[in-house]
Amino acid sequence: MSEFAWIDWLRERTPSVDRVRIGPGDDTAAMEFPGDRLTLVTTDMLLEGSCFRLAEAGAFRVGRKAMSVNLSDIAAMAGVPVAAVVSVGLPRSGGRAIAEDLYRGMREVADRFGVAIIGGDTNSWTGELVISVTVLGEANPRGPVRRSGAKPGDWLCVTGRLGGSILGHHLDFTPRVREALWLSECVDLHAMIDLSDGMSSDVHHLARESRCGFVLNAAQIPIHASAERLAEQDGKSQLEHALCDGEDFELLFTVSPEDGRKLIDAQPVTGLSISQVGIAVAESGVWLDEAGTRRPLPAGGYVHAFD
Amino acid sequence: MSEFAWIDWLRERTPSVDRVRIGPGDDTAAMEFPGDRLTLVTTDMLLEGSCFRLAEAGAFRVGRKAMSVNLSDIAAMAGVPVAAVVSVGLPRSGGRAIAEDLYRGMREVADRFGVAIIGGDTNSWTGELVISVTVLGEANPRGPVRRSGAKPGDWLCVTGRLGGSILGHHLDFTPRVREALWLSECVDLHAMIDLSDGMSSDVHHLARESRCGFVLNAAQIPIHASAERLAEQDGKSQLEHALCDGEDFELLFTVSPEDGRKLIDAQPVTGLSISQVGIAVAESGVWLDEAGTRRPLPAGGYVHAFD
Repeated sequence: MSEFAWIDWLRERTPSVDRVRIGPGDDTAAMEFPGDRLTLVTTDMLLEGSCFRLAEAGAFRVGRKAMSVNLSDIAAMAGVPVAAVVSVGLPRSGGRAIAEDLYRGMREVADRFGVAIIGGDTNSWTGELVISVTVLGEANPRGPVRRSGAKPGDWLCVTGRLGGSILGHHLDFTPRVREALWLSECVDLHAMIDLSDGMSSDVHHLARESRCGFVLNAAQIPIHASAERLAEQDGKSQLEHALCDGEDFELLFTVSPEDGRKLIDAQPVTGLSISQVGIAVAESGVWLDEAGTRRPLPAGGYVHAFD
Repeated sequence: MSEFAWIDWLRERTPSVDRVRIGPGDDTAAMEFPGDRLTLVTTDMLLEGSCFRLAEAGAFRVGRKAMSVNLSDIAAMAGVPVAAVVSVGLPRSGGRAIAEDLYRGMREVADRFGVAIIGGDTNSWTGELVISVTVLGEANPRGPVRRSGAKPGDWLCVTGRLGGSILGHHLDFTPRVREALWLSECVDLHAMIDLSDGMSSDVHHLARESRCGFVLNAAQIPIHASAERLAEQDGKSQLEHALCDGEDFELLFTVSPEDGRKLIDAQPVTGLSISQVGIAVAESGVWLDEAGTRRPLPAGGYVHAFD
């Protein structure tokens, strides 16, 4: 599980864009997919004002995010992203420059993951910037990792640190594509999701799809430095930010206790911490254990102990 | 080439949505594609004010169009559409009702062609309605029909009748998916494109990609009844409408003269006329022959004889 082994392993698995044959000038791209793997398809649309503010973020970072959120969905299945198509609605004023910066941002992320941008549709309109990306990928040879595979007794683990993404991480994150592939190589991933809505919401998705429950341990939630900064500013707790802020784009997953122990001890993903944050239980629901006191954790919200 | 044979042949080729496995609650869909065919991918975004007017068209017809324009792109390659993902940006006011009507419209078209809607991303925002659809398909077993295969001497043919789509056809057309498959079964299609920008533009796309030219015969251009109605209203000629209006979503294709004669004589596509409209020539460019006078036909425009 050395860094060398990881990078070597990844290089072998980086899809060659040679497999993508784009007809010159055709509206539709044609590409080869291996017949022995499931094809993954995911799509996400980003809209001015609700997913970004162009004036603050700049089009380059919006392009990065538009590609990254889709790659994060592929990562959540431990799949290999292969190709993307992009549709854009550009504001009439400054559309050309915006399009170029968007494309550079998307290209930067796509190149890093060997993803070919194989087609798209560029429009201008009287409205504000909207961009929709669809990413195709190959499922993990062991099959896609779903939200539905958690079993009571499983360890619930998370990559990285959570909270405060609004300070920049929500635009500048790196999707955990490689980390997911490497994790799937190291252990048997039972269930996985990428944290887009926020831990307190996404853990409910895992619970519902897996028909089980989870008990989170407050002391084990890894807090992002941005969550600490935000907490100083707004008076909410660091923990609340970590649980509720959303757009962390880290991986939340479950494994057997044996595999969990192996991951926590070996920390096999170079440059990225893996934390156990809870345990799966048979009873439906999600609870937060703070210093021995167990209270229900509602989806999307954190109920203060003294509310 | 009886109707029975056509329908029977189509039934065998309608993809089964059983091949699409959608994980319960997963953000990413997983599906099987046969390894021996190229996978086709196309995307189109429709925006309020530039591709439709919601208040006039209604969301149901916008949904139909959003699906149909993508299926038309698959048809242009004589491919089989298999699955679609849909991203929507809904206006905050009335978004729920709009979403339901959009979905019913998309569903109606998708069902008719055995296309599974396998995923999507639904958002609301302060802007106006925007919808982006990506369709995946399988290439024709003989390989995708491209824009680049026309040869000098080829007959240039078109399905149906052209012009006046603004009177309703641009929302309510049926994509020529089945017709394209049947044509590819009957003859060797050298090059094909769907008429979205309009004959006078799209024929230039064929010419450029095929590195050849075309001479259109004005007397052979099939005029749609809507083009006749429009011509009465606005004083432009019926021919100008047929050449320039766009959004006909008919198929423009080239075949050998032998195959062309076969198609024109046999008219093998039930309920749909096939017309020869011109001929491919070695010299680059596009010309319109009106009563023996040959003039250049610029992309997107029709130059009046007496201008």
